Order: sequence, then structure tokens, then C-alpha cells
Amino acid sequence: MPTRAHIDLNSDLGESFGPWSMGDDEAVLQQVSSANIACGFHAGDPVTMRATAAAAAAAGVAVGAHVAYRDLAGFGRRFLDASRQELTADVLYQIGALQACAAAAGTTVQYVKPHGALYHACRSHRPHAQAVAAAVAEFSRAAGRQVPLVLQAAAETADSAGIECAEDLGVPVVGEVFADRAYTAAGELVSRSESGAVITDPGAVVQQVLQFVEEGTVQTADGSMRALRAETICLHGDTPDAVQISRAVKAGLNERGVEIRSFV
Amino acid sequence: MPTRAHIDLNSDLGESFGPWSMGDDEAVLQQVSSANIACGFHAGDPVTMRATAAAAAAAGVAVGAHVAYRDLAGFGRRFLDASRQELTADVLYQIGALQACAAAAGTTVQYVKPHGALYHACRSHRPHAQAVAAAVAEFSRAAGRQVPLVLQAAAETADSAGIECAEDLGVPVVGEVFADRAYTAAGELVSRSESGAVITDPGAVVQQVLQFVEEGTVQTADGSMRALRAETICLHGDTPDAVQISRAVKAGLNERGVEIRSFV
Amino acid sequence: MPTRAHIDLNSDLGESFGPWSMGDDEAVLQQVSSANIACGFHAGDPVTMRATAAAAAAAGVAVGAHVAYRDLAGFGRRFLDASRQELTADVLYQIGALQACAAAAGTTVQYVKPHGALYHACRSHRPHAQAVAAAVAEFSRAAGRQVPLVLQAAAETADSAGIECAEDLGVPVVGEVFADRAYTAAGELVSRSESGAVITDPGAVVQQVLQFVEEGTVQTADGSMRALRAETICLHGDTPDAVQISRAVKAGLNERGVEIRSFV
Amino acid sequence: MPTRAHIDLNSDLGESFGPWSMGDDEAVLQQVSSANIACGFHAGDPVTMRATAAAAAAAGVAVGAHVAYRDLAGFGRRFLDASRQELTADVLYQIGALQACAAAAGTTVQYVKPHGALYHACRSHRPHAQAVAAAVAEFSRAAGRQVPLVLQAAAETADSAGIECAEDLGVPVVGEVFADRAYTAAGELVSRSESGAVITDPGAVVQQVLQFVEEGTVQTADGSMRALRAETICLHGDTPDAVQISRAVKAGLNERGVEIRSFV
Repeated sequence: MPTRAHIDLNSDLGESFGPWSMGDDEAVLQQVSSANIACGFHAGDPVTMRATAAAAAAAGVAVGAHVAYRDLAGFGRRFLDASRQELTADVLYQIGALQACAAAAGTTVQYVKPHGALYHACRSHRPHAQAVAAAVAEFSRAAGRQVPLVLQAAAETADSAGIECAEDLGVPVVGEVFADRAYTAAGELVSRSESGAVITDPGAVVQQVLQFVEEGTVQTADGSMRALRAETICLHGDTPDAVQISRAVKAGLNERGVEIRSFV
Repeated sequence: MPTRAHIDLNSDLGESFGPWSMGDDEAVLQQVSSANIACGFHAGDPVTMRATAAAAAAAGVAVGAHVAYRDLAGFGRRFLDASRQELTADVLYQIGALQACAAAAGTTVQYVKPHGALYHACRSHRPHAQAVAAAVAEFSRAAGRQVPLVLQAAAETADSAGIECAEDLGVPVVGEVFADRAYTAAGELVSRSESGAVITDPGAVVQQVLQFVEEGTVQTADGSMRALRAETICLHGDTPDAVQISRAVKAGLNERGVEIRSFV
Repeated sequence: MPTRAHIDLNSDLGESFGPWSMGDDEAVLQQVSSANIACGFHAGDPVTMRATAAAAAAAGVAVGAHVAYRDLAGFGRRFLDASRQELTADVLYQIGALQACAAAAGTTVQYVKPHGALYHACRSHRPHAQAVAAAVAEFSRAAGRQVPLVLQAAAETADSAGIECAEDLGVPVVGEVFADRAYTAAGELVSRSESGAVITDPGAVVQQVLQFVEEGTVQTADGSMRALRAETICLHGDTPDAVQISRAVKAGLNERGVEIRSFV
Repeated sequence: MPTRAHIDLNSDLGESFGPWSMGDDEAVLQQVSSANIACGFHAGDPVTMRATAAAAAAAGVAVGAHVAYRDLAGFGRRFLDASRQELTADVLYQIGALQACAAAAGTTVQYVKPHGALYHACRSHRPHAQAVAAAVAEFSRAAGRQVPLVLQAAAETADSAGIECAEDLGVPVVGEVFADRAYTAAGELVSRSESGAVITDPGAVVQQVLQFVEEGTVQTADGSMRALRAETICLHGDTPDAVQISRAVKAGLNERGVEIRSFV
């Protein structure tokens, strides 16, 4: 496979809350093409949301709603057994809240990425996957959007509840690979509870990114190559070397002539 | 002054939260023309917001964002000394969240009414009045609305920070009188901490409403008549006799041939 | 088996929050011997906690901490995948907060009852059962209590993670049967998602209570009798007929000469 | 006045929440004798509270409850117009919650310090000062403490509502001076909204501390010396140079032979 001409880089941003700051959003925004902005349920107060959307707009970076379970104390990393009805309404609420902040900042929400435990639920927990897809579909329909909101989902080698549910409802889906996460032989993410789940060596991260854009594959735990269908790569913004890594990734892509641009 | 041909009746709705219900929204929706829907900061979870917006749409009732300080435990009735920047972002967030729920329910937010302590702050606390007006103006501008959001404010006989700030920013304002609140000689609301602040006799409430639509005045504590400029009358939905009173008001207006319809 | 000389009746109380009230605590307190008081995580603001503890003290009713997942919007009815460390600290926090309110009201916390989804988790989710038991054990030890806090748990015919974990840590456990819940043939509660899970007929509720105190059994879905080891019976305080039912239960016990008194 | 033999140094600790960390508690704990631990209303989740109490115990540092308005998003820095009844119950709740965490960590709450806007309200807002003093008095009485909880309050040259209310209720009060805050000619803190309110030069901070322990005075904005009655000095833990400053203060006191020890 020839090297891709372009790829999207996304990162979680706007994860401060009230007096607490997280991440170096300003620096990360210089490297990525899509900003997943927290919407107040796991992080992100309204001042932060608006400021982050404004900074994304200024940097020419697309804005996505990083929606989550209602769990500020747990940062949305804990599964919460919400009903479908609750979850759909919670996601609609979050998208709308961010859309108001984004519009006031001169930009608009273009995609939705589930956060943390909800991201994982969207792969395997069908009722929650349906609830999220329904919220995205409804928002696009109700807002009369000509270009519907896109749902970001983990790139899969096999069935994913989230991708199926989205396709059932006509919601466009974009697959995602992680720059700094190890993959199992089955092409799934190695659980964070296992050692080696997160790749911390900047060179290895760059290598995983370049291999994906050049070959469309990731190397898995058993050394084999797995093809993944994805149009966006996630860079973490809250790790110690986040800024250094994101710069190295950007430089690596630039060298290969791969343009970093949003999938929207 | 001849009797008005029409008047808006508004009521606070959607004030349930999670397992707790408040008010008989279904019954009140049959009597009013505008529904002030709580947006999650003082009351109103997303499921309730969406269901209330849907019920309002079904009843042909206009939807307004009932925005508040972030104070669930205090139901937004306690002054909170937020910064202007925080308050503007908080109000934007709430309007956007409700707009998403309303749109999914087939309707749209048409006005904004500050709730509780924020309502009172908008009369006399200039920074907070400016913050709210700024949020309303920004939402209208950013959403590209042809008909801008209207701000509801207490009808005043004298200067009101909220009305001035709204007018400075080009935000349309609609004055409001209360069906069941007593007025001071100066034309202001008698404080709830004083006896007689709330009119509980249904007949007296109907009388206050009819006098306003026929004469444009309210009777004040010293027995004199005060002219108030208003286009909407607030009916409380959470008092013991709320439904009975709202029916009596509607019947009284119907007898006089005064149409109940939204100001928008 | 001869009729028991006494039995404890417990009910969930103090489930109001801020402006929202729930249940008729005053009436229910006249019928029961133990009050499970919400501690702020699923319901119960500090004013309510203190007032409920004072009312319980005045009625001679024992006070228990009704601890829950941090989930106000979901009333603690939704499983939340907290870590053991988080859950132990959350439970400690809740017990301590209620203890301060109870002490100020002239009484003291004497037992702990997990609420909602946490109650069910304590039967089958070992890490959460361990976390709760650890918190109860630590509180008793740290407070230097001569009479340790008791943990209420669902009466079981088979193994229960919660009971095992409590016993491992030396926490006294009291089993509980429900006055108005149907039991499966295996002696477990019929899930609320199935019809007939809740017994709404007051006569049938009284019958279930009397059979338990006289025979030590409950009738199960297949008509057979199941022996359950329990020392307390839960009466729901928030159902439409809660007060009527609790009065009928009390009257029925009085007729048989069964004293209603706390297990502590 | 001869140099004091000893002085208490206190600092705000445990101000992390969920995923967000604040301050270098470990380092600060090595310099101070009293730890003001956040109790969940403005900061401080239960895991953090317990861990901070354990670290304080290990360092031989006294534990105080840093109580606040219920305002996580605003970090308790915003005045909230709570009723007396609400505020007393909120403070009781916070003290009790921390006491449970502290006891489990092998220590105990020995004093109470209002945080942020509540600290300032305790100087001039009599109903809130009374509410806080009442909560402290009730906790001590109800817990049967032989040594009652101490209330920390701003050292004053004139009347302070908080000090008067505490004395009326028999609550012991300890005055506090700030190592890094400038004082007005009247002996009050220069408002943070004015330039020069915070002393950032480490040498100047040490100078203010040493002058206080040696002379019992602070230099005010007009160059004069003001006597203040205080037994504790607050070091901020969340400023950029917090650790460096606290080390310099400790070193300065050591040189003079002034022992750093808790006032309790």
C-alpha cells in the first residue's frame, strides 16, 4: 500500500476543570488537526470549553465533542450502568453545550468521540453504543446539518457494536488508531492494566504512526502485522512527554510528506 | 387603556431531577404559552429536559432556557459570586444544552429567563446582568438566528441593570409581571421573606392578572396602582394550588376574550 | 419454629435533596425501628441528614448510614465501576459525614446499609463487597467503638460476597428480607425488571412479614417455602401506599405480640 | 517583645480532586506543623482526603478541616449566599467526613479553617460566621471531645464577626497571619484584586514571618507596624515557589531557634 497522502491527528483537550488544569493544550494544538473537547461530564467547565474551542479555531483545528458518562470524580474512566434513554439524553446535552461554546468561539462541532469508559463501552456494550449513536444521529438531524456529525470509534478488525449501531442509523464513522498504545494479536488495545499497554518511547510511537500511514497496519503483541481501517490517530495530551511526542510525530509525518489534516 | 388582545403566560417547568419530581408539568402545560425549562444547573436532568421540551412542543408552547447559577443543592436560589466570564460561559452552556434537547424534540429555544437568585441579580447586579445579556447575544449571533433570543426580565418602573445591558447589546427584552406576587409601593416584588409576598388566594391571583391585562397596572402594598410594561405573566407551577390557579387564570382571560399566546 | 419475640423493621429515609422531597419520613418513622439515612452520594443533603437523624432520635429509631455510589443523578441505582480504593474511601466519607450529623442530633450511626446498585454489588461483586466491608471495619476500629458498626446485607440462601467479606474482617452482619419483594425459587429477589417483583397489595405484604417472623421463611415464585436467616425486614418508604403498608405491618406484628425493635 | 519560642505553620493541602492534582503536598508537609485538608466541597475527593491525612500523620503534622462553600467548579472562592441552617449542616458534614478519613489514617481532626470565600465571610458576614462557629461547637460537643476543635480565623486588629461568634459559643480561636500577603494600614489583607497583594519574593516572605515571630507585628502598606494576635502562620502551597518559600521560612525560623509546632 502506498503511503497515505494525509492523516488526521486527534488529541483530548480542554480537560481542565475549575481551578485544576490538565495538559498543555496550547502546545498540543500546534501538532494536531482535531481537538476532542471535554463537555463538562468528565472534565471541562464552560470557561475552559469556550477557551479551548477558540484556541482550536485559531489554530485551524477541527472541534469534536468528547462526551462521557456523568462522572467528574472518576474522570469518566469508570463504567456507569446508565439506561439507554439517560445516555442518549446525556450525550445530546453535552454536544449541545459544546456546540454553543464552539459557535460563540467562531467554530462548530464536527464530530463526537466517546471518552474513557464510554469509548470502550461503545465497542462491546450494545445498549450504550446504540444510545451514543442515536444521540449523534438526532443532533445532526435536529440541527438540520448538511454535513452530519461523524462518530469516532476504535478501529476494529472484527465487529464493533458502536460501528454497527452508527451505520444502522446513518451516522458516518471514522476509525481510530492509537499512536502510543500496544495492540493485541487480535488487533485490540492491550488493557491499561497490563504492562506495556502504553508505549512511552517517543521513537516507538513515531514508528507505530509511520507504519500505519505507510502500511495501514499496526504491529501486535505477537509480532504480526494487523491491518486496521482508520482515518485518525490519537495522540495523548496528558502524558509526561506528550508535547515532545506529538512534535516528533508531526515531524515524522512531514518528512514523509504526509499532510496532517482533519477527516471532516 | 383598552384590554390587551393577547398576553403570554409563562411557567417554570422541567424542574425535576433524577429520581425527584417537581410540579405537575403536564397540567400546567395546558394553561400556559411559554415554558421556562431548567437546564441542569439548578434542576433538570437531560432526560427531563428533552421530555419537557417534547411535551411543550406537543402542547404548542414556546420553549425558553431557564438558566441559573451552578447550584443544584440550593436550587439556584442562592446568590453565587461568579465572575462575569464564568457566568457568561455557564449561561451559554445551558442554552446550548437545552437547544440540543429542544431540537431533538422538534422545537427550539426562543427565549432565556434567568432563574432564582440570578433573576434578581439581573435587576441590580450589573456584572451579572451584563454576563447574562452577553451570553444571550452571543448565542443568537453565533447560531445565526434570524429571530434573536429574547431575554425575560422583571418589569420595572425604574432602571434595571438587566434591561439596560440587554438593550446595549441589542438583545430584545420582554418584561414580566407575576400573577401571585405582591408588589411594593415602588413597583418591586415584595421580598419572599416578608409575609404576604405570595398571593395564595386563587381569586386574588386572577384579579391581579385581569387588572394587568385590562389596565396595565398592579396594585401595590400601599393600595396605589403602578403601571408596569410587560408582555408576559409568570404563573408558578410548584405551589400547592398551582394547577387550580393556572386554570382559573386561563378561564378569566378566556372570558375577557384575551388570547393566551407566546410573545415570540 | 415458634414466632419470634421481636423483629427489626427498617426503611430508607432522608432521601430528599435540596428543594426536592421524597417519602413521608415523619409517618414512616412511627412504624420502624431502624432508619437507613442517605449520606449525600445518592440523596440526602446535610440539612436533611441532620433533620432526619434528629427525627429518628426523637422517635427512638436506630440510625444507619445508607451509603451509595457517587451518583446523584441516578439515585445510586446504577452500577459504577469504582476501584476498591475509591469505594472504601467513599464509604468512609459517607459514614463519617452522617456520624457528625447524627451526633449533633443526639444519636449515633449504628449500622451501614449499602444502597441501590451498591446493595446488589455487595452480593456478587467481590471487590466492591470487600471495599464496603473494609470501610465499615475501619470506621469501627478507628472510632474506637466498643460496639462495632453492623453491616446490613441481603439474606441469602447461598454464598454472598458481602457476607463473606464482612465475616473475614470481623464485621457483624445482619440479614435482611424485604416485606414487599417477591423471591425466586432460589431465594433471591425477583428482578425489578420482571412483573410481580414488587408486592403492592398491603395484605400480601403483611402476610409475607408474618410468615417470616412466624416461620422464618418466604414463599418463592414456585410456591415453595425458603428459609432465610434475617433479623431485619425492609419496608419501602417511597411507594404510593408506603405509609398504609407500614401501618398494617406494624399492626399485624402487634397482634401477634412481636415486638418491633432494632437489632442493635 | 522577645522572640516567640514556637510558632505554628499551616498550609492548604489535599486540594487535588479525582484526576486533577494540585500542589506538592509531600514537600510542603515537611515544612509545616498543621495541614488544612480540603473536605470535598471545594476540593478533595475521599481518596485524597484519606491519603493526605495519612501523610500528615506520618509527618507528625496536625490535621484541620478546611471547610468551604459547596462550590467545586469555583474552588470555594466565590461567595455563596447559603442560609445559616444550610451552612452549619454543610460544615458539620465536612468535618465528619474528614474525621472518618483522618481516624482511619490514625490521626484526628484538631481544628477547622474556613476556606476561600467562606474564610472572608467569617470576618464580616455575621450569619455565616455564626453558622461556622455553631458547627464547630456542635461537633466538639457531640463527639464528646475533651479538647474542643479550634477555629482558625484571620488575625484582626478590630472586631471580627467570626472571632466574636466563636467566643460566644465557647469555641477556642487561633489567629492567623499570612506569610506572603500584604497588609493594609488597618491591618487587613490587601485584596487579591490589587497589585502587590501577594508577596512573591522569598526573602520578603521570610522577613514578614521573622518580624511577626520576633515583634508580633506586620508591616503595613503605609510602612507602619501593626500588632496582630496570632498563633499560626499560613504558607501557601499552590504558588509556583511554594516549596522553596516554605523551606526558606523553616530555615529562617530554625536559625532563630523558633520551634515550628502545632498550636493544638
